[in-house]
Amino acid sequence: MSLFGRRPRPVHVPKLKPRRPSADQAVNRVSLAELTPDLPRYLGQAAYLQLSNVETISGAIASSPTTRDKVALTRVAKVSLGKLQGLLDEIERGGDTPEELMEYFAAPIDAFRAATRGADWYETVVTSYITASMLTDFFISLADGLPAAPRERIQAVLSDDPSPIIVKQLSAAIEAEPVLASRLALWGRRLVGDTLLVARSSLSVPGRVAPDEARLEPVFTELIAAHTRRMDALGLTA
Amino acid sequence: MSLFGRRPRPVHVPKLKPRRPSADQAVNRVSLAELTPDLPRYLGQAAYLQLSNVETISGAIASSPTTRDKVALTRVAKVSLGKLQGLLDEIERGGDTPEELMEYFAAPIDAFRAATRGADWYETVVTSYITASMLTDFFISLADGLPAAPRERIQAVLSDDPSPIIVKQLSAAIEAEPVLASRLALWGRRLVGDTLLVARSSLSVPGRVAPDEARLEPVFTELIAAHTRRMDALGLTA
Repeated sequence: MSLFGRRPRPVHVPKLKPRRPSADQAVNRVSLAELTPDLPRYLGQAAYLQLSNVETISGAIASSPTTRDKVALTRVAKVSLGKLQGLLDEIERGGDTPEELMEYFAAPIDAFRAATRGADWYETVVTSYITASMLTDFFISLADGLPAAPRERIQAVLSDDPSPIIVKQLSAAIEAEPVLASRLALWGRRLVGDTLLVARSSLSVPGRVAPDEARLEPVFTELIAAHTRRMDALGLTA
Repeated sequence: MSLFGRRPRPVHVPKLKPRRPSADQAVNRVSLAELTPDLPRYLGQAAYLQLSNVETISGAIASSPTTRDKVALTRVAKVSLGKLQGLLDEIERGGDTPEELMEYFAAPIDAFRAATRGADWYETVVTSYITASMLTDFFISLADGLPAAPRERIQAVLSDDPSPIIVKQLSAAIEAEPVLASRLALWGRRLVGDTLLVARSSLSVPGRVAPDEARLEPVFTELIAAHTRRMDALGLTA
């Protein structure tokens, strides 16, 4: 089933710049706005990524070493499910069926999840923290190129952030077992490449000229800087 | 860690009858109100059962045959996580720590979940439908013996019911593959015994005289009648 066989592909029209370009993210946001896929494609991919994150967290709940960890992760799962629900609602608002828009992205994202699953509970929790945060940043920026009404709803939905719960959990785990630090630092570094590739693939829209790599560089630099801050929050070297 | 070493066990005082005893459930409700454990024990067990259901649904999301099924089950998971959150909030409102009240029930409920996991996606979805519905009915009745304020909040939280989503999913699956019907009917029947044992164990409060079996009979008869209606909704023989 091809997502794009179902409707005429909209002609790519350069988007207006966002209203408030004052923050230091402005450069990246302007670049991404011009590369945003159309709304159904954006939503299908964002929703499948969120579903994938739900699955990663679900797996971590099941393998949690303690009831306390299970309970903490159910709170993380609730946030992720809330985001997924918001995206599904947005798809239905547009008259589309979620699974039809999502299916197109199932195979590559399932492969991404399999490759980033992690060897144990600690690595899986790091995966959810690092990959979901990075991709959420990316999709919030990418939404800049969407029409105003869905953009505002989508950016609001995606802004809910369960990171503090995970940081608290992982920090406690690393403090209790300092030998974890180097392994998880390595794992975090390993995740960046795969995650950036997924982000990068969102910009390759069939029928559209590939984006200029030089233009993308500041976007990815910013994503990596945010990643470094996240690893810092765990006391790990990025 | 013993849940009951931490506080004096309240003396068992017969509860007043519920306000509106007109429904045909009144007999059962009165019986159960007299058997209700104290609030922390009730909440710890209800929350761990809900967590267990979240894990069962999570496993089913991962093993879903299609994206459509995954999406539908995330909606079920969201309802279950909402109930869990409500119970956790109620525990914290009472000044307790969720994992401490829940831990006491981890081993028996984990064993229950392992025994009812099912051989494949279809059986696992039936498990979530049948066991969670039955135990929810039971815990809503059991809450009758709790003080009014938490009782009303808890019964409201537990009343959210994702069954229509599951019934739609399973009915479609059985229609598409009629050979499933006899296997799932058998599995549903198999689940009743284990689930009733879990319900039964909630009434065995340490230090309290075991409840009179004759008095419990109408309660379990009603649970089984509701179970039969649920299997009917799938077109299966209970």
